[in-house]
Amino acid sequence: MSADPRADALVDRMLSGDRRALARLITRIENREASVPEIMRRAYPRTGRAYTVGITGPPGAGKSTLVDRLLAAIRKTGATVAVIAVDPTSPFTGGAVLGDRIRMQAHTLDPGVFIRSMATRGSLGGLSRATAEVQKLLDAAGFAWILVETVGVGQTELDIVRLADTTVVVLVPESGDGIQTMKAGLLEAADILVVNKADREGAPRLMTELKYMVHLHRESQLASRDLDWEVPVLSTEAAHDVGVVELLDTIGRHRAALEASGALERGRRARRARELRGLILAELRQEVDRALADGGALERVLADVEAGRVDPYTAIPMIVERLRPGPPRHS
Amino acid sequence: MSADPRADALVDRMLSGDRRALARLITRIENREASVPEIMRRAYPRTGRAYTVGITGPPGAGKSTLVDRLLAAIRKTGATVAVIAVDPTSPFTGGAVLGDRIRMQAHTLDPGVFIRSMATRGSLGGLSRATAEVQKLLDAAGFAWILVETVGVGQTELDIVRLADTTVVVLVPESGDGIQTMKAGLLEAADILVVNKADREGAPRLMTELKYMVHLHRESQLASRDLDWEVPVLSTEAAHDVGVVELLDTIGRHRAALEASGALERGRRARRARELRGLILAELRQEVDRALADGGALERVLADVEAGRVDPYTAIPMIVERLRPGPPRHS
Repeated sequence: MSADPRADALVDRMLSGDRRALARLITRIENREASVPEIMRRAYPRTGRAYTVGITGPPGAGKSTLVDRLLAAIRKTGATVAVIAVDPTSPFTGGAVLGDRIRMQAHTLDPGVFIRSMATRGSLGGLSRATAEVQKLLDAAGFAWILVETVGVGQTELDIVRLADTTVVVLVPESGDGIQTMKAGLLEAADILVVNKADREGAPRLMTELKYMVHLHRESQLASRDLDWEVPVLSTEAAHDVGVVELLDTIGRHRAALEASGALERGRRARRARELRGLILAELRQEVDRALADGGALERVLADVEAGRVDPYTAIPMIVERLRPGPPRHS
Repeated sequence: MSADPRADALVDRMLSGDRRALARLITRIENREASVPEIMRRAYPRTGRAYTVGITGPPGAGKSTLVDRLLAAIRKTGATVAVIAVDPTSPFTGGAVLGDRIRMQAHTLDPGVFIRSMATRGSLGGLSRATAEVQKLLDAAGFAWILVETVGVGQTELDIVRLADTTVVVLVPESGDGIQTMKAGLLEAADILVVNKADREGAPRLMTELKYMVHLHRESQLASRDLDWEVPVLSTEAAHDVGVVELLDTIGRHRAALEASGALERGRRARRARELRGLILAELRQEVDRALADGGALERVLADVEAGRVDPYTAIPMIVERLRPGPPRHS
C-alpha cells in the first residue's frame, strides 16, 4: 500500500544507484512535499551503514576547501563520499551555492561522489530536519561516508552538527580571540578541533589556547560523552593539502573509540529519539496552527490575546485543555 | 484566588516601585519557578506603556558602550530606562556578566535606571521566552524605555530582537565584510543600522555598502514591514559619545512613524500571538515528554524507534493519534 507510487519508484531507483532519482528526492524533501514521510519510510530500512562527519566553524575558516581535500583523501581509500553543504543564512548571500556548483563540476565524472548544497527555505528548524532526512537518503543510497558542512554559530548549526557521528570544528587564527569563537557550545560540540590556515600568524597561539581549553574541560566532557577521548587539536593548511590525511586518521581513531565503547550506538539511539520527538512536535505545531485558525473557540481566544484583552497566561489553561494530548484513548 | 501568595506580594511590591522585589521576580523567571504564570498574570494588566529598543550585532561591535551612552542620553530627557543584557552563549565565557556588574555600579545611585544581565540556563529557546517575560515585568514596573542588548547572530538572538519595537543593528568595520555580517536575517531585522567605531579604517566603505544594501532591499522590506521607512545608516563613536543623540532622535522618528501608521499596534498584536503560540507549544512539549516517559504504550514505541526496530515515520501516525489535539471536546 502506498500513497504515492511515483515516490516509491524514485526511491527504488535511488536504492539501485540512480543519482538523478536521489537528487529529485532531495528536492522533494527541500520543498516539504507530501510524499516525504512515504519516501523516508521506504528509505529507512536501508540506513545505518554510513558514517557521518560534521564539519563546522565560523565563516571564512576554509571549511569548503578542507571538506574538498577530505573528500579526496577518503576517495583514495576507495570508499564513496557524499557531501551536504548547509548554509543556514539569508537566501540573498548566495555565496555557498555558487562555490558548490564549482566544486561539483570537479567531481562530475566520479560516481563515488555526490555533493549537494542546502539553503534555508523558510524556517531554520525546517533546515535541520531536512538535513537529517537527506542524510538518511544518502545513507540508504549506499554512501560509506557523509560529510555535513555547515557555518557554525547558532542553534540550527548545533542541531545539524548533532546529526554527525564525529564533529570537526574548524577555526582560523583570524576567527577572533579563542574565547569568542568558542561561544554557543561550539567547543562542547567538537570531537576534533582543527586550526586551519596554520601557516598564518597567530596559529600557534590559537592552538595553545585551544589545547588549554580542552584540558580545562576534559572532566566535564568525559562525564557527558561517556567516552575516553580527549579532543585533539590538529593543524591543517587545506589549501596546500597539509594535515588532511592526519585529520582523516584522527576521525578514524575517533570512530574506532566510539565503536569499541558502544558510544556510537548510544549516540545513534539518542539521535533517533530526538528525531522522533522533533517529528511529534512538528505535527502538533501544525495542529495548533490549524486549531488557532479554524474560526472556532480558539481563534476567538487568539483574537482576545492579540488585542491585549486577555493575557496569554490566563488563556493558556483554556487552550491547552482543549488541545491537550490526553492519556491514550482506548477506543 | 492565588496559588502563590508570596509571588503576589512580590508583584505588588514591584508595582509600587520596589526594585529588590523586581530583581527577585526576575530570578524566579530565570529559574523557571512554578509561580511564573501567576506572576505574569498579575503583571500583565500593567503592561503596554514601555517602548522597547533592541540593540544587536556581532561580538566586539561595542554594543555595551553604545547602550550605556544611549541610556545616559535617555536619562537626560528625564525618562526612566531598564536594560536587559542577554548573552545567549556558553556559561563559561562569562565576559558579559562581569562587564555588566561594572556598568551597574555606575548607575547604582540612580533609581531611574535598572540593569540586568541574563545568560542561558539550559535551552536557548527558554532564554528568549524568559527575556520576553522580564521585558513585561519591566514594563509593568513602569520603565518608560527598555533596552534589550544581545549578541546577534543566531535564531535565539533574532527571537529576542523580535521583542523590540525598534531594532538597532550595530556593526563595526572589523565585523568582517558586510555580506557576511548580514547573515541569518540580521539586515532584515534592522530598523536602524549603526556603524560604530566610525573613526576606524573601513568605516566609510562599510557605510556605503550598507546603504546600497538597504536600497536594494527597500522594496521587499516595504512589503513585509507595512511602513514607509527606509532603514537609515548612522555612524557613531560610542566610546567618545559621538552620534548617540542622533541615534536617539532616529529611534524617536521610527517610533513616531510606527505610531502614526498603526504599525506599532500591529507589531505588538503579532508579538502577542507569537507569544501565545510559543506558550502553547511549550506546554504541549512538556506533555509529549511526559507521555514518552510514563511507562505506557508511547514509551514502548520510543524504545522501538531508539533501537531502530521501527522507523520514526511509521511510528508518528500511531503516536500522534494518541496525542492528537482533537477538535474541541464539548464535555
